[in-house]
Amino acid sequence: MIVTLMTDFGLSDAYVGVMKGTIAQINPRLQTIDLTHQIPPQDITSARFQLMTAYPYFPDGTVHVVVVDPSVGSSRRAIAVQLKAGFVVAPDNGLVSGILEHAVAAVELTNRKYWRSQTPSATFHGRDIFSPVGAHLASGVPLKELGDEIDLNSIIKLPIPDAIATENGIQGVIQAIDHFGNLITNIPGERFFNCSWSVQIHQSIYAGHTTYADAKVGEIIGLIGSHGWVEIAMNHGNAQSYLKLGIGTSIVTVIQSN
Amino acid sequence: MIVTLMTDFGLSDAYVGVMKGTIAQINPRLQTIDLTHQIPPQDITSARFQLMTAYPYFPDGTVHVVVVDPSVGSSRRAIAVQLKAGFVVAPDNGLVSGILEHAVAAVELTNRKYWRSQTPSATFHGRDIFSPVGAHLASGVPLKELGDEIDLNSIIKLPIPDAIATENGIQGVIQAIDHFGNLITNIPGERFFNCSWSVQIHQSIYAGHTTYADAKVGEIIGLIGSHGWVEIAMNHGNAQSYLKLGIGTSIVTVIQSN
Amino acid sequence: MIVTLMTDFGLSDAYVGVMKGTIAQINPRLQTIDLTHQIPPQDITSARFQLMTAYPYFPDGTVHVVVVDPSVGSSRRAIAVQLKAGFVVAPDNGLVSGILEHAVAAVELTNRKYWRSQTPSATFHGRDIFSPVGAHLASGVPLKELGDEIDLNSIIKLPIPDAIATENGIQGVIQAIDHFGNLITNIPGERFFNCSWSVQIHQSIYAGHTTYADAKVGEIIGLIGSHGWVEIAMNHGNAQSYLKLGIGTSIVTVIQSN
Repeated sequence: MIVTLMTDFGLSDAYVGVMKGTIAQINPRLQTIDLTHQIPPQDITSARFQLMTAYPYFPDGTVHVVVVDPSVGSSRRAIAVQLKAGFVVAPDNGLVSGILEHAVAAVELTNRKYWRSQTPSATFHGRDIFSPVGAHLASGVPLKELGDEIDLNSIIKLPIPDAIATENGIQGVIQAIDHFGNLITNIPGERFFNCSWSVQIHQSIYAGHTTYADAKVGEIIGLIGSHGWVEIAMNHGNAQSYLKLGIGTSIVTVIQSN
Repeated sequence: MIVTLMTDFGLSDAYVGVMKGTIAQINPRLQTIDLTHQIPPQDITSARFQLMTAYPYFPDGTVHVVVVDPSVGSSRRAIAVQLKAGFVVAPDNGLVSGILEHAVAAVELTNRKYWRSQTPSATFHGRDIFSPVGAHLASGVPLKELGDEIDLNSIIKLPIPDAIATENGIQGVIQAIDHFGNLITNIPGERFFNCSWSVQIHQSIYAGHTTYADAKVGEIIGLIGSHGWVEIAMNHGNAQSYLKLGIGTSIVTVIQSN
Repeated sequence: MIVTLMTDFGLSDAYVGVMKGTIAQINPRLQTIDLTHQIPPQDITSARFQLMTAYPYFPDGTVHVVVVDPSVGSSRRAIAVQLKAGFVVAPDNGLVSGILEHAVAAVELTNRKYWRSQTPSATFHGRDIFSPVGAHLASGVPLKELGDEIDLNSIIKLPIPDAIATENGIQGVIQAIDHFGNLITNIPGERFFNCSWSVQIHQSIYAGHTTYADAKVGEIIGLIGSHGWVEIAMNHGNAQSYLKLGIGTSIVTVIQSN
């Protein structure tokens, strides 16, 4: 069974290795896979996005342990959520909200039997609660054993605006910026297949393309990204270095013709 | 069986991958876990700290291969140390000194049968000596097979000052700074449970807290960290960016009342 | 069986994790090992070098999936190459050219049965083509099943100049710069064992050494690196920070005496 790990711990300390050791102490046959540990410190929005885009690509039963936890030590809930194809174990602070449509059941992690110790540290619940619970879940412990069942509607959602239809396209926002400087919007790309379309940012208009190879080197283009959303990219370059736009920036896509 | 790896090799070259390939050539069923590969180049003090904090969280029998080796190619010894719960394979330069209290036996790696080749390279003993020896050890080769037994007292220690008791607290130093900018001291935290206490750095005094949630956003606080030591942190922020203190800075903790 | 992964995706997004999930969906018993994901964006030359240096250190049958793909979405071929000890799956853009001497057969990846879907995304062939094909290959699918056989001579080579013999040494270029700032040339080191030799860069001459321990702290030296090539290094320091030379810089090695 697979346990994925995503945190804002970075890779310069042994924190992530310690989580994997904790998991191996419980069940050395579990396989761990890193989603990323370079979530900007305490950036729940970014972690929500990465989890949402990674979830469909893992085997049934995979347990995703996500620890971006600015309120560790407060009364925020720790939860485990059963999804159609796997589980998430995380603080209840919005991390799970990108895949809640796939949720089928959830519990609050109140059963200390599955924690590393009855008295966890005040600051490292990734080691003391989330990893051990994830390891037990991946080893076959039933969800309901982990704590009290909670209403799926009580799980915290982030205030990400929905993309909205306009007269001749869709309006949305930049929801993520990746390593290559691609600006990933929350506008679903499927509407733009086999169309002539463009992207408008402030006063500028960029043509929608099907692939990088259709564009000139250095050209800014609209593209339907691998996640399925419209993104703004630079062919053989870094769109973000050039455009310098932030997450949340308003983006409008326009269909010229079908 | 698990082999952990810690180096100052970074992740931009294939050096770490090559160590894992070398291990898999010896025994493909071994599982490797990265502690960190972002130890600052040749920073033995930092690697010693990371190993010390990670050691308790791995299963019995885990082999920790640590390669931070500024004197590679000199006559510094290469050693393997058996601990109460596992082994360390490393150059003898102080890396092991944080967990020497757990050591039960040690050898110098003189038996070239367990090296990758009889004539290792002059610069990459991680690939040519430490990883292969670690792989053989994790595969069941007895410690004594690896070379000549050495006295535990002959293993090199780093000159880390001990924390010392004062009239109303403990004086120590910053021994590590983590990814979040938390300043981790060498002052054991257990003394400060259920006390009113504070941390003094130069002329400034910061209140000791039990958890981040007790502090204001942006407040500098003392905290008992997840490693068990007193640390200086900023709630929802980076203490190091604000305080700009170095490793070795003197720190005094004071108990106001029990 | 082992699948190694090398990309220019970085580690801040979940792209690499998604490739591993895709592999696990096909065969959860495959073991993945990262070579590096910090190839500079679209730097085929650098990835070619890393693959060439890592290849000898993996078990027979290892599948190396390499995705540095500036022309994704164009008509560049996707290929799988059988080597004497393993396989490479990659775009045909020069990535494989450092180990072509070990190649025994190659195919173009035309059989969509082994892709993730019949209609891959325009931008993420690492997820949609290369990882799934690599997983099937490591699981026992024969090379010829993956597509049409191609002539080994048709595989694209990078224009890396060969090192050439001079009257009293060898002339070459810097072909890589590593995390420690070592400048790695394409000059084979074996010629310089047991010789008195030096390295000449522009007007400066640096003595060749057998090991760092023979040099003074801070001294720039020639060294036969762990890959087998001549490299320029600084003892206890970073040669690149001091010399500031680029990949491709001409380097001359001179033998003073045998």
